[in-house]
Amino acid sequence: MNSPFKTVALVGKYDSDIGESVLRLARFLVHRGFQVVIARQTAEKLDIPGYRLENLSDIGKVADVAIVLGGDGTILSITRVLAPFGVPIIGVNQGRLGFLTDISMEEMETELADILKGRYQSEDRILLEARVIRGQETLYEACAFNDVVVSKAGTGRLIEFEVSIDEEYVYSQRSDGLVVATPTGSTAYALSAGGPILHPTLDAIALVPICPHTLSARPIAVNGDSHVEIRIVFADDCRAHFDGQKHVDLVVGDRLQIYRAIKPATLLHPLDHSYYSTLRQKLHWGHQL
Amino acid sequence: MNSPFKTVALVGKYDSDIGESVLRLARFLVHRGFQVVIARQTAEKLDIPGYRLENLSDIGKVADVAIVLGGDGTILSITRVLAPFGVPIIGVNQGRLGFLTDISMEEMETELADILKGRYQSEDRILLEARVIRGQETLYEACAFNDVVVSKAGTGRLIEFEVSIDEEYVYSQRSDGLVVATPTGSTAYALSAGGPILHPTLDAIALVPICPHTLSARPIAVNGDSHVEIRIVFADDCRAHFDGQKHVDLVVGDRLQIYRAIKPATLLHPLDHSYYSTLRQKLHWGHQL
Amino acid sequence: MNSPFKTVALVGKYDSDIGESVLRLARFLVHRGFQVVIARQTAEKLDIPGYRLENLSDIGKVADVAIVLGGDGTILSITRVLAPFGVPIIGVNQGRLGFLTDISMEEMETELADILKGRYQSEDRILLEARVIRGQETLYEACAFNDVVVSKAGTGRLIEFEVSIDEEYVYSQRSDGLVVATPTGSTAYALSAGGPILHPTLDAIALVPICPHTLSARPIAVNGDSHVEIRIVFADDCRAHFDGQKHVDLVVGDRLQIYRAIKPATLLHPLDHSYYSTLRQKLHWGHQL
Amino acid sequence: MNSPFKTVALVGKYDSDIGESVLRLARFLVHRGFQVVIARQTAEKLDIPGYRLENLSDIGKVADVAIVLGGDGTILSITRVLAPFGVPIIGVNQGRLGFLTDISMEEMETELADILKGRYQSEDRILLEARVIRGQETLYEACAFNDVVVSKAGTGRLIEFEVSIDEEYVYSQRSDGLVVATPTGSTAYALSAGGPILHPTLDAIALVPICPHTLSARPIAVNGDSHVEIRIVFADDCRAHFDGQKHVDLVVGDRLQIYRAIKPATLLHPLDHSYYSTLRQKLHWGHQL
Repeated sequence: MNSPFKTVALVGKYDSDIGESVLRLARFLVHRGFQVVIARQTAEKLDIPGYRLENLSDIGKVADVAIVLGGDGTILSITRVLAPFGVPIIGVNQGRLGFLTDISMEEMETELADILKGRYQSEDRILLEARVIRGQETLYEACAFNDVVVSKAGTGRLIEFEVSIDEEYVYSQRSDGLVVATPTGSTAYALSAGGPILHPTLDAIALVPICPHTLSARPIAVNGDSHVEIRIVFADDCRAHFDGQKHVDLVVGDRLQIYRAIKPATLLHPLDHSYYSTLRQKLHWGHQL
Repeated sequence: MNSPFKTVALVGKYDSDIGESVLRLARFLVHRGFQVVIARQTAEKLDIPGYRLENLSDIGKVADVAIVLGGDGTILSITRVLAPFGVPIIGVNQGRLGFLTDISMEEMETELADILKGRYQSEDRILLEARVIRGQETLYEACAFNDVVVSKAGTGRLIEFEVSIDEEYVYSQRSDGLVVATPTGSTAYALSAGGPILHPTLDAIALVPICPHTLSARPIAVNGDSHVEIRIVFADDCRAHFDGQKHVDLVVGDRLQIYRAIKPATLLHPLDHSYYSTLRQKLHWGHQL
Repeated sequence: MNSPFKTVALVGKYDSDIGESVLRLARFLVHRGFQVVIARQTAEKLDIPGYRLENLSDIGKVADVAIVLGGDGTILSITRVLAPFGVPIIGVNQGRLGFLTDISMEEMETELADILKGRYQSEDRILLEARVIRGQETLYEACAFNDVVVSKAGTGRLIEFEVSIDEEYVYSQRSDGLVVATPTGSTAYALSAGGPILHPTLDAIALVPICPHTLSARPIAVNGDSHVEIRIVFADDCRAHFDGQKHVDLVVGDRLQIYRAIKPATLLHPLDHSYYSTLRQKLHWGHQL
Repeated sequence: MNSPFKTVALVGKYDSDIGESVLRLARFLVHRGFQVVIARQTAEKLDIPGYRLENLSDIGKVADVAIVLGGDGTILSITRVLAPFGVPIIGVNQGRLGFLTDISMEEMETELADILKGRYQSEDRILLEARVIRGQETLYEACAFNDVVVSKAGTGRLIEFEVSIDEEYVYSQRSDGLVVATPTGSTAYALSAGGPILHPTLDAIALVPICPHTLSARPIAVNGDSHVEIRIVFADDCRAHFDGQKHVDLVVGDRLQIYRAIKPATLLHPLDHSYYSTLRQKLHWGHQL
């Protein structure tokens, strides 16, 4: 196959269904002359001799493109690892299509053949880097594709924090927390909290309050190059969550700094992919009273 | 003093300022011929020989009216105990006035003199009873004046539950939780979650979703005689909170049953008290862009 | 048929489909021994000799129950006329079911047979009376089953008004307008404006601001016996709408007074009717991201 | 004065107060060696011999900077005319400060002296161009700095329209209308309708539904280079509004096309100007329950 890609990585969270699909894809790719590398964790319980296995972090170094089999949650976690290497990602979904996975397993060979021949839409999406500063020390660092969320934890009592952007004080807030979301995350938790949808091409970060005590609090979208800092002023029990997949406990005085990651994630979509069509389908637009 | 009341209880969470005010009030009342009983916990660190002390639960049996010194939070906790005894409550606030405390300490003698002479507005407000059923067993019972809240706890993952009213299925929801609020609670957490304000005279219960996953979810106010049941369908980590002051952990399958308490709370207000005026002041109505 | 009703009225906005259904129903009712009276306007273009015809207002005097064929809009307009006479109403819908019309034409004979035998749920719902006062004069009077709406008109500039309840000042507001809704109307325009759903059994009126300039404005539900007055303070162009079916122009200084109608409307539903089920279906609850 | 500017225009809607301020400023500028040109309409009722007067559109050709005296509404209308000429604008406010006018008349000489010496923050903000297409014909063209709004007009019945972006169908909607707002307009009407705040540096356009019939409708912010088209599908009575200052009637089938103007507006602010500070002040952030 005449392709802009030579080495194709296959990544998926292992389960029996995906295992079969990974094998199907691996054979499909080898047959077309691609170098295939499979994520070691994905391959662990599969009987697939003859394929090159690599850790996810090494895949970033060797692959020209990665095909990720799974749901939106899987894409989030894989993208956080591969984005810094500039490896573009193609999402294949086992169940119903997601916001990030626009190819169904049934049609994956046809769709992937097209994409691998260079017939695709390429889309860059920003990620967030975050670090927790306690005193002078960086306590924790993490990356997020959807959102960084500061929120009350188990006790259920509201927290109080100060938000600064580019070292300028913006507001203080008493609330259940704050969602700091990328455009990708704007259709996830931020939307439930009342935030706006941000088109993926926007270089913007949304700050969406969660159940704010102040009635005049409103979501705001700031420039993607903004440095957002959240300082915990009062909290019995408080956490920062990254894509809802990792978290760290925060205490009063902690500063959570959030800024756009240097490298965006690159998603490859079929040529007929439409963001607005996905929105309509996922958000059930069109249903009327 | 010619009064409809004979025995007046004084209750307040002890601290130095309130201690002084309690004494001031006690002398004021004795001087006017009232029987005065002071909550034992309130009196603990005060040097007030000569006054009758009683546990809060016994105050319910002997007092004709209770004067509560503190903020809205104090009123909530005292009212939950005294309401079943039918003891009317007068709220005196040490700081800025609250939704439930409309007499300031500066003017308390004048205002209380009037109220104790029978010149007051009496207002009945509903409370909620709640119980947690696990299997066949009642695991926990509690009362709430503001709200019963089911919510995700520390892990931050959304929960899934089913709501039934009067044993009829109403909806399933994936969200951060649900606020079940009295009219009194409609200006508290339920309001932050996007719920409506319910006038205190309404015999109604508001069900307000917290960050619902479904975009078409909306707050609903149902009749006060409704039996609300929330069954936990999925949760990593889930809690029920009562007035934000008590909580109990819930697991999948637990049923939280909520219904109006048999006896309402009776609040006594000065004759010039105005609910709408309190609303304007507390919600900063009138501020315009 | 052994029935609590003797005289049954048939009302529907004429069109070919409904004409046929009216005839079908008329024969069905006569065959079962009921006195049938058909609204003159409904019958106008039908060839139905032998049936008693009456004006809608006279139907109120002679009928024991009225069957209304049409959509929710038809029910609104017919109910406003018949409710003062205490005539219960049964809604039959030609298209998809509405909030007020729970019997489909396909199954109407079966469902109506049951209801007319006395096997029904009876539900009382409040209506609103409204009058416009200009100076000392009552300029206009109207009734509404869903809502009375004050709003800007064609120029599109916001209006400013003061709301009083029971002659007490509540708030001033600059906005596109205000929806004053019954529980029945709470699932109509008030819901689009961000208002809460009020269960039909609530004796409550919702005040829902439309695009308020003040960020802290919130919907409030007040007791059904409240007298609401809206005084226009500033407006280029302003109107009051009644159920979205009638309107009157307002000028600065006009006072719009709104209060619960003395008589409620009575709706008769099949025994298996469920308000919550209708909510789920009409609001598409259950759709999840 | 050593300045990057030579010719300074003075523009303000005439009234006695502004007249005095215009003269004060004119003398101040002449004294510092600037060429001063005054808008003819502003000068009309002033007795100011010796100053050069020009029509607003000619001011665009000769001025290096324009000082606009008035409120946000005045800035909107002047900016729409001057932006295409690339003339930067300084806003001076007679009353309380606005979002666009950050210099008070009391301190205008000090602040302006600084700005005219080149000590300022320059900020580019996008404007919108819009045209109404009826059949094959362009019926109307207009520019907007805040927003283009399609809405129902006097009858008060909702409208139905289809939105396309870059010639791709996005959604159909039944609602009171749609606000298409710049970041500048995001704190105006769009905010009242529930839209997000967009930082002025964002190259983005917000689409904010007004009282949408569909509960799952949500505001969306799209890229500033998007071509938005709104096609009227159903309307009794419908209008397009531009900055709330001009309007045109629309009929079924009309297409309203909206896109970013080629030239942005340039606003000059004092060096200590802070957008977030203005937000806090204008939106009353910080007020807490």
